[in-house]
Amino acid sequence: MKKKCIVLLSGGLDSTTVLKIAQENFDVIPVIFDYGQRHKFEISAAKKIAMQNGLKARLIEIDLKQFGNSALTANIDVPKNQEIGNEIPVTYVPVRNTIFLSYALALSEVEKVYDIFIGVNALDYSGYPDCRPEFIDSFEKMANLATKFTQDESKIKIHTPLIDLSKSEIISKGVELGVDYSTTHSCYDPDKDGKACKECDACVLRSRGFKNANITDPTIYQ
Amino acid sequence: MKKKCIVLLSGGLDSTTVLKIAQENFDVIPVIFDYGQRHKFEISAAKKIAMQNGLKARLIEIDLKQFGNSALTANIDVPKNQEIGNEIPVTYVPVRNTIFLSYALALSEVEKVYDIFIGVNALDYSGYPDCRPEFIDSFEKMANLATKFTQDESKIKIHTPLIDLSKSEIISKGVELGVDYSTTHSCYDPDKDGKACKECDACVLRSRGFKNANITDPTIYQ
Repeated sequence: MKKKCIVLLSGGLDSTTVLKIAQENFDVIPVIFDYGQRHKFEISAAKKIAMQNGLKARLIEIDLKQFGNSALTANIDVPKNQEIGNEIPVTYVPVRNTIFLSYALALSEVEKVYDIFIGVNALDYSGYPDCRPEFIDSFEKMANLATKFTQDESKIKIHTPLIDLSKSEIISKGVELGVDYSTTHSCYDPDKDGKACKECDACVLRSRGFKNANITDPTIYQ
Repeated sequence: MKKKCIVLLSGGLDSTTVLKIAQENFDVIPVIFDYGQRHKFEISAAKKIAMQNGLKARLIEIDLKQFGNSALTANIDVPKNQEIGNEIPVTYVPVRNTIFLSYALALSEVEKVYDIFIGVNALDYSGYPDCRPEFIDSFEKMANLATKFTQDESKIKIHTPLIDLSKSEIISKGVELGVDYSTTHSCYDPDKDGKACKECDACVLRSRGFKNANITDPTIYQ
């Protein structure tokens, strides 16, 4: 019998690839966050992806809208066609990954699950501080001091299988594992039908990734 | 003008003392968590304490009931008259302080507040892992890697002014600062009128603290 693990599943390209990677060695509990994001297409995508992979997702509702200060949770325009990586953009959601991982940790403690997977990567990304390896390492250390169930010999491990991969490497890996990228949703600013804008950071990184991987991009653009 | 700070205010003896300590040097934003605790007396106490001190509290609702596994959030009996400190008791709420501090961090980031106060203490306590100095240090390190606003020279500081104090020292300090302990609520298992049980860990530590400090205990017991 495989060990259980938790995978943070946003419905995007990265976390879906992580889910497939995790399934090779673990019995996966996907965790989806409805955090007050402005559009809900990624939540429907995440639910569909869990189902396609024969998994029952755990939906956790949290309200990050109350803190606003991000183009993803407040009435702030999503930047288009900007230079990526020069500075942390307004699509950064304050403390989002810390809060997500904290909830995942609570679930892992009550379910006695010691492995948590998250699809952060530090190449081809927008420079969010909470996607860097030093943040993840630091969260893992903290997690092992924070919890009752890690006070024996077992330790929490935060897995980041994508951390050093480029977007095209992630896509190639995913295709190899049979990921259906047509179900995944990356765009920060979709139209009312969920069609991608092709101009936000998430779209630019995604379409460049497919191009560099020489794989047909299944995304439906506006 | 004083700098702003955030104080995690539970309505108990410790966090109320911390609030008074913080007020000496800071303009305090009290944060109260309605986290799905079985009784709500501590939330009313916290609101009253904020008001008594001329402060507007920020109420954050989060659902830790969904994780259960604690006598404070699930249908598990609160232990009475037990040896304190032998093992981590069932009143431990999985990952509670990590989640509380993560939300406080989100608020601190959007409000540009670099100082967060929490009333943990590692003497006269129930042995919760997330009350120890090593956990707090580790959270602080993580916080400074997690956030956008700490990527310049300013750093988040988690203040724990009670960490090395005994319960009686905390009470003496609070009385000196004018804390009205009759408003504070500590009991894990109050009756329907909010009267304290006198037998749970929180009551035992509290009443012993007043006794050792030679200060009249204003708590109303059942």
